[in-house]
Amino acid sequence: MTPDLDALQVHHFDALENRYAEVLTAQGYDRLLIYSGRPTRHFGDDQDASFCSYGHFQHWTGQSQLTHSWLLVQPGRRPVCYLHAPDDFWHLPAQLPDEAWTARLEVVVGRYDEAPPIATGGRLAVIGDVSAATSAALGAELNPATLLTALDEGRVRKSDYEIACLSEANRRSVLGHSAARNAFLAGGSELDIHLSYLQASRQREGELPYDNIVGIGCHAAVLHYQHYDTQAPRKRYSLLVDAGHRYRGYCADITRTWPGAEADPLFADLIAGMHEIKQRLVSEVAPGVAFVELHERMHRLLGELLAKSELVRGSSDTAIESGITRAFCPHGLGHLLGIQVHDVAGRTAHDGSPLPPPADHPALRLTRELEAGMAVTIEPGLYVIPMLLEPLKSGPTARHLNWPMIERLAPHGGIRIEDNVIVTADAGRNLTVDIE
Amino acid sequence: MTPDLDALQVHHFDALENRYAEVLTAQGYDRLLIYSGRPTRHFGDDQDASFCSYGHFQHWTGQSQLTHSWLLVQPGRRPVCYLHAPDDFWHLPAQLPDEAWTARLEVVVGRYDEAPPIATGGRLAVIGDVSAATSAALGAELNPATLLTALDEGRVRKSDYEIACLSEANRRSVLGHSAARNAFLAGGSELDIHLSYLQASRQREGELPYDNIVGIGCHAAVLHYQHYDTQAPRKRYSLLVDAGHRYRGYCADITRTWPGAEADPLFADLIAGMHEIKQRLVSEVAPGVAFVELHERMHRLLGELLAKSELVRGSSDTAIESGITRAFCPHGLGHLLGIQVHDVAGRTAHDGSPLPPPADHPALRLTRELEAGMAVTIEPGLYVIPMLLEPLKSGPTARHLNWPMIERLAPHGGIRIEDNVIVTADAGRNLTVDIE
Repeated sequence: MTPDLDALQVHHFDALENRYAEVLTAQGYDRLLIYSGRPTRHFGDDQDASFCSYGHFQHWTGQSQLTHSWLLVQPGRRPVCYLHAPDDFWHLPAQLPDEAWTARLEVVVGRYDEAPPIATGGRLAVIGDVSAATSAALGAELNPATLLTALDEGRVRKSDYEIACLSEANRRSVLGHSAARNAFLAGGSELDIHLSYLQASRQREGELPYDNIVGIGCHAAVLHYQHYDTQAPRKRYSLLVDAGHRYRGYCADITRTWPGAEADPLFADLIAGMHEIKQRLVSEVAPGVAFVELHERMHRLLGELLAKSELVRGSSDTAIESGITRAFCPHGLGHLLGIQVHDVAGRTAHDGSPLPPPADHPALRLTRELEAGMAVTIEPGLYVIPMLLEPLKSGPTARHLNWPMIERLAPHGGIRIEDNVIVTADAGRNLTVDIE
Repeated sequence: MTPDLDALQVHHFDALENRYAEVLTAQGYDRLLIYSGRPTRHFGDDQDASFCSYGHFQHWTGQSQLTHSWLLVQPGRRPVCYLHAPDDFWHLPAQLPDEAWTARLEVVVGRYDEAPPIATGGRLAVIGDVSAATSAALGAELNPATLLTALDEGRVRKSDYEIACLSEANRRSVLGHSAARNAFLAGGSELDIHLSYLQASRQREGELPYDNIVGIGCHAAVLHYQHYDTQAPRKRYSLLVDAGHRYRGYCADITRTWPGAEADPLFADLIAGMHEIKQRLVSEVAPGVAFVELHERMHRLLGELLAKSELVRGSSDTAIESGITRAFCPHGLGHLLGIQVHDVAGRTAHDGSPLPPPADHPALRLTRELEAGMAVTIEPGLYVIPMLLEPLKSGPTARHLNWPMIERLAPHGGIRIEDNVIVTADAGRNLTVDIE
């Protein structure tokens, strides 16, 4: 990679060492052992499920597919990586990447089906998917809540290195989105579109930060639609693709919606309107902004779009106050983004105390005030979800809704436009470029 | 699907009902509750790993992706399927397929994060990935070994329906293999080949019966090579693809090896020789044949090929007795095939008593005598695995090995040719057609 990224990474490593030393010392721990985790085996079978290394392990190593490996962090000492790479002609033994920071580790290659034989003495914590028995044998405290809260908080504001990785993940994901749209326009099925995305973004499904959502037509209204139809539908109204990338541990999470050959012109107009809403919201990202308020702002803009397009009769206030906008968009405006697509600590204050979402917006994953260095998604949505709109037919708000127009929209499913944004010292920097 | 398959499926269902009634009655159980299982969540994250339903659940339903669902089997009564399909706009609710056998079930749609509320009374067993607490709350015996052994044994001899499914899985997998070879010849990387395979065989990675093995060059020598390089190597010696398909629960498991533009003519000759060995072994499949002997027969044929090609100097006996053939092929000749790619009960007798593999062949997964209805893989291999050949350099067998020729072969990795074969009343029926 570029020397720039190498240099940034070394700074990231320095900051990690300092942050961990600070937290461990403050909480009275002498050492911390972080487990990578290992894949789960399907029950009654000899095949493994897909795997992703534990977030805090990736925070140091950037490796999402290392299994059975351990990292020992001791303030003032060189971190030790116990790398599970036994002699094995069945598998290619694991290796650390050819990156400068690895020189900062002591690497002990071996077989670590069990925890590594670390010396006893001092107060030890172990974190990760470790059994109580293993933890007890180590004489360790297992996943202490106060420690995890502090370490989670240390992932909220991204270093320049992390921002560079998020940016690279975005660049690669955008290549996939462009190919996905082309596959759709060429008549491909959801499976074809999914595979085109993987092909152009150069990744396998098992290493995606989350399962690609590829919905044609009414499937676009299923927020986490989980299938890939192998047949393309005869009529092609729309495509929604929510798909990401993981670069050195850091995730992109991008959504685009495209009109199909059979799309109603109304739908294309609404897509344009949603792009504008997304742009408006991105332009309002800045330190000090309460994300809950930005989420409410989305509902205001959504109400205006619904009124302007005549899906809702009456003012945008009506649409918001009667809960109509929540029926059209039941998910949150966005979430923290990092090593996990829904990154840690989105609903906690600095000290780890809970910040629950507003009662009317239970799905909102980010309830904090924005701070410089945070990475967030901005993803306004507008869907025809029968389960949410049907109940409005018999209520007092029924008369505000343009039901024939909703019927016309229904086969298009819905719209979501999602970008990834860094909170800078005074504004937001959009990592997601326009997709042509 | 064809009416034929529908009719076969109903017979399969009858046979299942009879078999389960027989086993449950013989072992004194009144009822059996089978859990589908559910996906594992990555530790500290909100994303799930890939999933595959429990084998015995698939045996009835053919559904590999149903989660949180349960099947209640009671001799003499209609089986009840508790189908987990809660109202949920985040996901598309699960459905049973549009297949005739589903009329034989009582289907109770609901939310089954916990076990379904079945009536108490009688002796109940529960099988699957169920917690001890859940099992206790049900008043059930959890995964009783004797019961599982009998149910496993009931999967060993395939019904005509199961054979039709295995055959269809083979047909689809072959389309993938053909596309994989073309992608390789067109200059594709391992990732490109993997995606071409998925594209042509119409499946997503997460539903494969096992992770595709796609090894270019020396990667072909890593038996379960687990990566997909995104860059194609400059020199293209060889490609090994071991990849399957799952149709209504039943797996194909096929391997092919192809020479690349830079292949040594010796390698192409060896591939032809391995195809012949595979054919010979398939022709020797029949009821009453001990699979261990067929595996030893592979080593004899391998010894002959090594001698004929002058990789080994001396007779094929020398190659076998000195362990040379085991260094060139450390895995078993094959395994049972069915709902699991390495299907259950390959190393147990009819009564469930263990049939361990011979000490010299620890990796052999099938140690039984062949019986009509069994589905097996026949997969002879020949590899240059440095970890296994290096030690022979300093031993008494060193002089039998043609080291310069082994050096020439090394960049090609190895060869595996694998077909899927049904044991008929008097012979073997190959489900895997030649791949052009």
